Amino acid sequence: MKIMIMGMDGYLGWTLAMYLSGRGHEVSGVDNLCRRRIVNEVGSCSATPIKPIEERIKTYEELSGKKLTFYGGDLTHSDFTDLVIKKERPETIVHLGEIPSAPYSMIDVEHCNYVQTNNIIGNNNILFAMHRHTPDCHLLKLGTMGEYGTPNVDIPEGFFEIEYRGRKDRLPFPRQPGSWYHLTKVHDSHNIIFACKIWGLRSTDIMQGVVHGIVTDDMVDDALLTRFDFDEAFGTALNRFCAQAVIGHELTLYGKGGQTRGYIALRDSMQCLTLAAENPPEEGEYRVFNQFEECYSINELSEHVVKVAGESGIESKIWNIENPRIEAEDHYYNPDHERLPKLGFKPVNTLDDELRLTIPKLLEYRERIEAKRDKIMPTILWKK
Amino acid sequence: MKIMIMGMDGYLGWTLAMYLSGRGHEVSGVDNLCRRRIVNEVGSCSATPIKPIEERIKTYEELSGKKLTFYGGDLTHSDFTDLVIKKERPETIVHLGEIPSAPYSMIDVEHCNYVQTNNIIGNNNILFAMHRHTPDCHLLKLGTMGEYGTPNVDIPEGFFEIEYRGRKDRLPFPRQPGSWYHLTKVHDSHNIIFACKIWGLRSTDIMQGVVHGIVTDDMVDDALLTRFDFDEAFGTALNRFCAQAVIGHELTLYGKGGQTRGYIALRDSMQCLTLAAENPPEEGEYRVFNQFEECYSINELSEHVVKVAGESGIESKIWNIENPRIEAEDHYYNPDHERLPKLGFKPVNTLDDELRLTIPKLLEYRERIEAKRDKIMPTILWKK
Repeated sequence: MKIMIMGMDGYLGWTLAMYLSGRGHEVSGVDNLCRRRIVNEVGSCSATPIKPIEERIKTYEELSGKKLTFYGGDLTHSDFTDLVIKKERPETIVHLGEIPSAPYSMIDVEHCNYVQTNNIIGNNNILFAMHRHTPDCHLLKLGTMGEYGTPNVDIPEGFFEIEYRGRKDRLPFPRQPGSWYHLTKVHDSHNIIFACKIWGLRSTDIMQGVVHGIVTDDMVDDALLTRFDFDEAFGTALNRFCAQAVIGHELTLYGKGGQTRGYIALRDSMQCLTLAAENPPEEGEYRVFNQFEECYSINELSEHVVKVAGESGIESKIWNIENPRIEAEDHYYNPDHERLPKLGFKPVNTLDDELRLTIPKLLEYRERIEAKRDKIMPTILWKK
Repeated sequence: MKIMIMGMDGYLGWTLAMYLSGRGHEVSGVDNLCRRRIVNEVGSCSATPIKPIEERIKTYEELSGKKLTFYGGDLTHSDFTDLVIKKERPETIVHLGEIPSAPYSMIDVEHCNYVQTNNIIGNNNILFAMHRHTPDCHLLKLGTMGEYGTPNVDIPEGFFEIEYRGRKDRLPFPRQPGSWYHLTKVHDSHNIIFACKIWGLRSTDIMQGVVHGIVTDDMVDDALLTRFDFDEAFGTALNRFCAQAVIGHELTLYGKGGQTRGYIALRDSMQCLTLAAENPPEEGEYRVFNQFEECYSINELSEHVVKVAGESGIESKIWNIENPRIEAEDHYYNPDHERLPKLGFKPVNTLDDELRLTIPKLLEYRERIEAKRDKIMPTILWKK
């Protein structure tokens, strides 16, 4: 299948490019390399060293004997997006090409507007180019479980049947996102629903849990590693805990620690995205997959890290600090996740399995993390 | 009260500036005059002649003895928005400063992106400036009943209590907007909910029905008239019918004509916005008012126009044409509208009352409409 990955230079994009290529798909990709730039902007870097995109691709092609096609450019430029889609005519577009950080979007008005414009306009340009050149193409779009927030009821996969004052309808499940970044994913979802409705496009909107892990079978050489961010803006709580354990820093836990989210291992995320790509929706269909394996509170996450780090001889302590975010710290959380298992998804990596790969790999790059030690503590506040 | 009107040069903005000023409020306003430019861009103009903003203001000040403060500038420039809000320190901001046309947003990718960026970023800049300079200010934001679409259940005012799989919550009512423009209003609503939650801002999000009418008591001189657009992009169905009646054109009805919406007369819209401004929400409160008086199908609207035009000796015929939009043409529609009446709103103008003012006024400007006769038929299609 011809698959185009938007955001091919990112954490998931690079991993997925190799994964899909390895399965025999014809993979092309687009990236403006902004992730490298904005992680630099906040003064940090990936724990794993990341080669320039040309080198990454060259190394992969040499070691695998397969080919990756890459276009450098910005999805917010509609002419560029139109051109690459017209040229490649992909059967599937996996859209991972958005700025992914909640704290980064919360820095100030300029960062809020940059993230919202970048994500919304890039996504719109893809929709218009698909409508024009590849109306049968499947848009596999990365959203986030964070679109839903933490309602006091079960979270279905995108839509729910309701009875209200004696009448029934199937409606989009209400979204209650928690940052300017998370809001962009909600805005995208609404825009995509509309494009599917009026133009008959087909899309899978992935509400993905937090992805963790760093190693896949394709990374046979460290030049092929994907990035691992741990700073306050681009590191997830789990990445932060791992990085802190490795450099002997207390694991900084925000607030009460009851914040519960869905999690999925990197290799399982690859499996899920591939299943979705290889089983496209019908013409005009907009479907939502909640893509995660297990739910953990931040408290539980930190305990897993302490345990697995201990197996490498690292003693870690937990440090409860004030929560820089505004979010529920003790809440109900019960999202459905049945559609991917129905397509054949079988999780193969538990949180502990993945941590047993991640922590030793990070130990190899301990000095890189140590050098950015002062970029981990939160300085970006939801309310100043 | 110090009230700042964003979009003071527009259809509602200009009318509201005079209305609030007449009630003794201290009114300032902001506009980048883009409405004039984009109506020109589609080759049309207002049926009523509109003086330059400086002349409008001068005439109003001379005739009323009151003062209006005006700032020319673009809300998408965060520095400008920050500056005017810092300078005026309004107690209420009435945000009418967005591009309001569904068809205009549907022209192509550039117009979609322009409308989405303009509306979302302008609104974000207001939120950030309020947070910084006037955290107690009330944001009275113009949304649209079109945010809800046409669900098969009753439409509450913004939120609904649901029971889902045995648990309960109060959630935002799902939005199903029908154009790139309508989507911007949904995106704004989500962004505003978030700002109220994290910063304690207070906001009233007005889900307004289609406003009709052209004359208020403040328009004692035709130099004070507000605009009346009738072209395919900026004219509502009702405006189009009125304009067509006046120039002896068939009333072009899209599709089956069962499309049902809420309507409100211009003078009643002024009453509602004033009630909302004079009764602000609590700190941190985000509330939604469904602002309309009566629901009509397009079929019913056209019959009202035929009847009232007949009273002026005009014979009008109805012409059913293919619907350029993708929308339900026969659907359930039952939105709540109880919160404004509870604040004291009493509609004083029926549809027919308002048409009896509008049609004679348009007859005075018959030649201006006649000159743009070819701008009325739909050429912008939802699906090409």
